[in-house]
Amino acid sequence: MSASPARVTAVDTYDIRFPTSRELDGSDAMNPDPDYSAAYVVLRTDAADGHEGHGFTFTIGRGNDVQVAAIDALRNHVLHRPVDEICGDPSVLYRDLIGDSQLRWLGPEKGVMHMAIGAVINAVWDLAARRAGKPVWQLLADAEPEWIVRQIDFRYLTDALTPEEALTILRRGREGAAERRARLLERGFPAYTTSAGWLGYDDEKLTRLAAAAVADGFRQIKLKVGADLDDDIRRCRVARAVVGPDIRLAVDANQRWNVDEAIRWTKALAEFDPYWIEEPTSPDDILGHAAIRRAVAPVKVATGEHVQNRIVFKQLLQAGALDVVQIDAARVGGVNENLAVLLLAAKFGVPVCPHAGGVGLCELVQHLSMFDYLAVAGTTDDRVIEYVDHLHDHFLDPVVIREGHYTAPTAPGFSAAMRPESVAEYTYPGGTFWAADAQTQKGQAA
Amino acid sequence: MSASPARVTAVDTYDIRFPTSRELDGSDAMNPDPDYSAAYVVLRTDAADGHEGHGFTFTIGRGNDVQVAAIDALRNHVLHRPVDEICGDPSVLYRDLIGDSQLRWLGPEKGVMHMAIGAVINAVWDLAARRAGKPVWQLLADAEPEWIVRQIDFRYLTDALTPEEALTILRRGREGAAERRARLLERGFPAYTTSAGWLGYDDEKLTRLAAAAVADGFRQIKLKVGADLDDDIRRCRVARAVVGPDIRLAVDANQRWNVDEAIRWTKALAEFDPYWIEEPTSPDDILGHAAIRRAVAPVKVATGEHVQNRIVFKQLLQAGALDVVQIDAARVGGVNENLAVLLLAAKFGVPVCPHAGGVGLCELVQHLSMFDYLAVAGTTDDRVIEYVDHLHDHFLDPVVIREGHYTAPTAPGFSAAMRPESVAEYTYPGGTFWAADAQTQKGQAA
Repeated sequence: MSASPARVTAVDTYDIRFPTSRELDGSDAMNPDPDYSAAYVVLRTDAADGHEGHGFTFTIGRGNDVQVAAIDALRNHVLHRPVDEICGDPSVLYRDLIGDSQLRWLGPEKGVMHMAIGAVINAVWDLAARRAGKPVWQLLADAEPEWIVRQIDFRYLTDALTPEEALTILRRGREGAAERRARLLERGFPAYTTSAGWLGYDDEKLTRLAAAAVADGFRQIKLKVGADLDDDIRRCRVARAVVGPDIRLAVDANQRWNVDEAIRWTKALAEFDPYWIEEPTSPDDILGHAAIRRAVAPVKVATGEHVQNRIVFKQLLQAGALDVVQIDAARVGGVNENLAVLLLAAKFGVPVCPHAGGVGLCELVQHLSMFDYLAVAGTTDDRVIEYVDHLHDHFLDPVVIREGHYTAPTAPGFSAAMRPESVAEYTYPGGTFWAADAQTQKGQAA
Repeated sequence: MSASPARVTAVDTYDIRFPTSRELDGSDAMNPDPDYSAAYVVLRTDAADGHEGHGFTFTIGRGNDVQVAAIDALRNHVLHRPVDEICGDPSVLYRDLIGDSQLRWLGPEKGVMHMAIGAVINAVWDLAARRAGKPVWQLLADAEPEWIVRQIDFRYLTDALTPEEALTILRRGREGAAERRARLLERGFPAYTTSAGWLGYDDEKLTRLAAAAVADGFRQIKLKVGADLDDDIRRCRVARAVVGPDIRLAVDANQRWNVDEAIRWTKALAEFDPYWIEEPTSPDDILGHAAIRRAVAPVKVATGEHVQNRIVFKQLLQAGALDVVQIDAARVGGVNENLAVLLLAAKFGVPVCPHAGGVGLCELVQHLSMFDYLAVAGTTDDRVIEYVDHLHDHFLDPVVIREGHYTAPTAPGFSAAMRPESVAEYTYPGGTFWAADAQTQKGQAA
């Protein structure tokens, strides 16, 4: 008697919110008071191995419930699917999700619905890697180039990258991979830190944290800018004085400016030798980024954390609008779409320096940069992963930073699982933290 | 004793779905079986006049619940606001909604959250026009140019259109407005029809409906294409033979193609003299549309129903990627953002031919084209509003088509209110139609 194949038995969703706005962690010119949150999804199966798949969309508070509703709307595509099928080739489910002809109307491939797809697809990759007994970076690096190419939807990409070109890049990426893997395991992947530079921090805290970052081995730090030019000039001067001339100092405007404003403001900061200007304007403005890049060189232009999909990344590269591609693990349609972006960046010779921070974004995206190093770009030159030092303690396999580098994770999976205690405490509005908070506020109001 | 000002007392939402997939109305190459739906919102106030404001997002079935959740997430921004404030200057609420720093993370200004903002803002315009005793087209045409300019968020636009340029266009638009208004009231605004050309219809039905369209006075019809080239060639031949050489024949691929495919396919249909190719590729692909346009001229390139916001429209115009701007009344952030798009199109001298159909899109968008004629473009040359002949009977002020023209609505408001009986019947899943349908399906399964 043959046993029936293991299937997905539950797609459980959770609205998790952390009260970060109370400390101004994460404050910038567009996001003065974020409550870092996650619309969290857990895939459960009836396989004997007991593995689960974990994924999430990062949000900054209000609207996390909408994101949960969007993941719920995908449930029927996932429930009862054979585990071997979705884990053996995640592209099958990925294509089903982005191809749902009715849900597609709500995007297509952008915003709430697309981030929901990313959460579910990343959960599948977490499950697939756990079943394979490998971290995701290794699952990807061990895969055949042909299989990787199959993970990508080339619709709307072929004018910039064909499957054949992707295959060539991946085959070339196999040369020297064993040596790179040894180096990765020994040294990790370079990081930079944003922890010193939040807009809500005063100069004393900026000074202290910037000095600590250099002492900890970081070679790049980042400052939030864009609210007030005089403040920005003062803060850049303070930061540059603390870190000296050899540490890279990136600045990040979080979409605050129009095109002409971005050019003017960035030039006004040029004396402090900023390494890149990040998100100078709308993430949708490909031609705007290209105009800014032409005007502010040699300051580099970086964007990506809000770039909605591979089609916009394609055009940013085609238009010569970027010096740095900042993928985000949970903004686009999950690992599958990020593979497309890594290969596009390689085709155009532009380095990938991921966006991270938030809730669990460091945990996820390190796997993608490590795969990029091992099998696509083949180098860490001018590549750094953002690092922000909060909320990691809510994860079962938190990132490990050593001397300014991300240590390669060894636990199977995507490092995406949250601690059950954290889920119980910060589920909104019923978790123990929020329930107690509501009681306190009721008391104060009375 | 002064009375307290009237306020918004309720923001009620409804998940309305029509079972259109059963007739293949609305079928195209990307949307084989849509159930035309609306996430519908009604603003109620405690004003003595008893007026309500109605708005909606159009969807094609699954995910309509996500859209309702997104509108619900905006409720706290609207509830208890003074009616005079939100109706006297809708830009105040519009800026609050697009500027919510936490909800903004879910876009920004795209997809589910942005369409929800559009539904709420359009409901405010419906309410404002009812209170003013005017249809929205007239409210807009009667407004001072300075007030119209204030309705627009120029962030991310000023490299293509400044407030001063917008004001100049609007001031110029006042010349001859009285004559145009008289003509509009007499003749209406030209329409074209898509009712003949759905992909699911056979040649006999296509022939019959195309002939009827010409007999009804339409000077342009549209065919869905993109699933199978041989079929498309046959259907274009049939349609061209029926309508003769003088009727414009547009074709619509609903985003089906990659760039090279779009060029090849459009050229293969060139012998039938297509007037425009609509949505040849991804609505996000500005550079792709520009490449297609260069290659397929003199066939015109049209897009817009899925263009997410003013920033993408701006770039489509900057890149010379379009011959026809197809605004949609319910895709972007409501009337306010569509005013920006109308003015951008005027600045670049590109005609606006709105997308309509769906649920209530004809009812809404006619107001915007009529304002465009009266106060912005100043002409109906090469301007037509899409018309599709279904689901109008669910609206209290349905569009009136006469000799291939939209008749100017005279009832106050945005023509957005649905009939209470329709709401009661098609609310999902509890309305009378869907409850009965569930019973039937249960019976068939048993």
